[in-house]
Amino acid sequence: MIKVYLDNASTTPILPAVKEAMLPYLGEDFGNPSCIHSWGDVAREAVETAREQVAQLIGGNIEEIVFTSSGTESNNFAIKGLALAQQNKGKHVVVSAIEHFSVLHSAKTLEKWGFELTLVPVDKYGVVDPDDVRKSLRKDTVLVSIMHANNEVGTLEPIREIARITREHGVVLHTDAVATAGTVPVDIKDLGVDALSLAGNQFYGPKGAGALWVKRGVRIMPLLDGGVQEGGRRAGTENVPAIVGLGKAAELAKADMTRRTEHIARLRDRLLKELPARIEHVVVTGHPQDRIPGNASFCIEFIEGESMLMLLNSQGVAVTSGSACTSRALLASHVLIAMGLSHEIAQGSLLFSFGIDNTSADVEHVLEVMPPIVERLRQMSPLYSKFIKASKGGK
Amino acid sequence: MIKVYLDNASTTPILPAVKEAMLPYLGEDFGNPSCIHSWGDVAREAVETAREQVAQLIGGNIEEIVFTSSGTESNNFAIKGLALAQQNKGKHVVVSAIEHFSVLHSAKTLEKWGFELTLVPVDKYGVVDPDDVRKSLRKDTVLVSIMHANNEVGTLEPIREIARITREHGVVLHTDAVATAGTVPVDIKDLGVDALSLAGNQFYGPKGAGALWVKRGVRIMPLLDGGVQEGGRRAGTENVPAIVGLGKAAELAKADMTRRTEHIARLRDRLLKELPARIEHVVVTGHPQDRIPGNASFCIEFIEGESMLMLLNSQGVAVTSGSACTSRALLASHVLIAMGLSHEIAQGSLLFSFGIDNTSADVEHVLEVMPPIVERLRQMSPLYSKFIKASKGGK
Repeated sequence: MIKVYLDNASTTPILPAVKEAMLPYLGEDFGNPSCIHSWGDVAREAVETAREQVAQLIGGNIEEIVFTSSGTESNNFAIKGLALAQQNKGKHVVVSAIEHFSVLHSAKTLEKWGFELTLVPVDKYGVVDPDDVRKSLRKDTVLVSIMHANNEVGTLEPIREIARITREHGVVLHTDAVATAGTVPVDIKDLGVDALSLAGNQFYGPKGAGALWVKRGVRIMPLLDGGVQEGGRRAGTENVPAIVGLGKAAELAKADMTRRTEHIARLRDRLLKELPARIEHVVVTGHPQDRIPGNASFCIEFIEGESMLMLLNSQGVAVTSGSACTSRALLASHVLIAMGLSHEIAQGSLLFSFGIDNTSADVEHVLEVMPPIVERLRQMSPLYSKFIKASKGGK
Repeated sequence: MIKVYLDNASTTPILPAVKEAMLPYLGEDFGNPSCIHSWGDVAREAVETAREQVAQLIGGNIEEIVFTSSGTESNNFAIKGLALAQQNKGKHVVVSAIEHFSVLHSAKTLEKWGFELTLVPVDKYGVVDPDDVRKSLRKDTVLVSIMHANNEVGTLEPIREIARITREHGVVLHTDAVATAGTVPVDIKDLGVDALSLAGNQFYGPKGAGALWVKRGVRIMPLLDGGVQEGGRRAGTENVPAIVGLGKAAELAKADMTRRTEHIARLRDRLLKELPARIEHVVVTGHPQDRIPGNASFCIEFIEGESMLMLLNSQGVAVTSGSACTSRALLASHVLIAMGLSHEIAQGSLLFSFGIDNTSADVEHVLEVMPPIVERLRQMSPLYSKFIKASKGGK
């Protein structure tokens, strides 16, 4: 059977060169970086090399990089750690309505801890208006977090403009760059943010390693207490092989970014254009231009995403409805709802996310299998029958 | 040069069979377990197999196992998550004075959040008196955490007796079993605890995977908010390869425990007996009998641990002074101080921790290189000169 992986937003494959770089640390170089002996030295040097590679990917300083276990941990650390460290100044936090749940639910946990939370809306493309951020700021606002690009619909947010506003007001700005770092150019100085989350498994690195960049001088409270690892900001024995993999993946992403982007965007653009041409009642979600290169997200009307996932899977095609982290919860995406789509339409969301291993043949396969799947599901859909009847009645 | 790794308490090597089990998940089986497609299915099944292996190691139910990124995360999750979930009942927490910093510092963070903390003392062997735990309990006590064995001096704690007391009082009992799970038999029903932390890199599994077992019905608040992974108790894309490695390591540990223990304890016992016979002014720390099999901990008087580590390293021997997580902080161990040792003596702490790859030749090498190292350092030690003068003066 043809197998087509179009779920790179959930996790990417690991590049062979990344795996190769990791293997020694799963073998004889197994030391603990905190130890004062040769095994510890080897492990520590490996971690510090990775720190430099990650710092270079985003233009940060090495001592500003804190390794974590995932993008989710980076976001939890940022939201809770930055807010708690700043709480003497105030207890008001601002995030967008379309943040990943690791940001949104962390912010809701802050609410339980006595913080107040303002959710900034988005337009129909999923774009935050910087002016809405400005209006949300109060004297007691200590943290704003707006994602660099949305993981479900791919929309890029105007972080530079938002950063100008938060800087004016002296408020810390975090951005969740899990969907962009390693995929499109991300430069912390250019963006003007104070903290930025990234995850290795989004750009051909392994699961188990993410990072939070925190600008020098910005205070943050640890999420994990214990030993003095990561400059006292994140305790726990470092996951050396995964960190090494993250570092290598960062190096390769930086070196190869233009070629990757062109390849991925070309395939994605064909699907974005052709799928709505071949199937009726398909809505492209997200911004028409300002989106990350691999993202092709749609809502297929009158159908539930879950049934499409299953039928696509039976044709060897792996995609996601909503986001990976919630796909098994089967709720309508909070992102699409915030963009103003109805629950009915949002139920039919489908995200194709392209990666460097995809080919034109993958797109052709999707374009071939999708119309009969949609046709079949619509024939079983009461909503669709109702719609057809209404259209006929209207004629 | 002879290379002798005697720092298994900091981290163990990864067994080849464990690495083998992990490799597919660093290769083509790279899926995200949350996804509804074949790649997701493979990853999810791997994680669930590992969950069963870990559950079997400690006698728990699979749905009671929450995977984390490390022992430190498990302990943070337990202390903060259990206390916060129980805070409507009261805000008093009890831990021993010799807990790992991931427990101790988490408890101190709770203090910042308005909890009160009682530290239970230990005797000269590092043993907690269950009666002291009983005395520490108040009406508003919601959590007791006492480690199963201390990571620095190896002393096993009377958890069964403590569990009887906490059960009588309806207080949740957590035990940090990072130093014991996978090394000695650990059965949660036998121990009678409500939550238990473990870490794969302590029993020949990889770094990056730990677990918290939480008894069915015991409420816990997530430390990492976000997606619905791990039954909503721990968000973030699962570190599939590391979790698979943890599971495999658990399976192998259970199958091979008796043989491993006998081998390790035999080597350790020889060092415990011979080192003090060959070097003057050596104090064995920890309990003479009730200790984990791999632990041989000493204080070498009149010397600083750090200089010994360096000279031992130059002889190819890897050991630790204090614990790995703090060795680079170079503070006198809080464990030894709590056991009543002076700062001066505690400075000379040295932990040899044996593993399954060690041999009799390793012990002989240590017994050969240690006396000249100690001799050399003592000749440079002002404390030792003072002691010698005083002894001569006293004659």
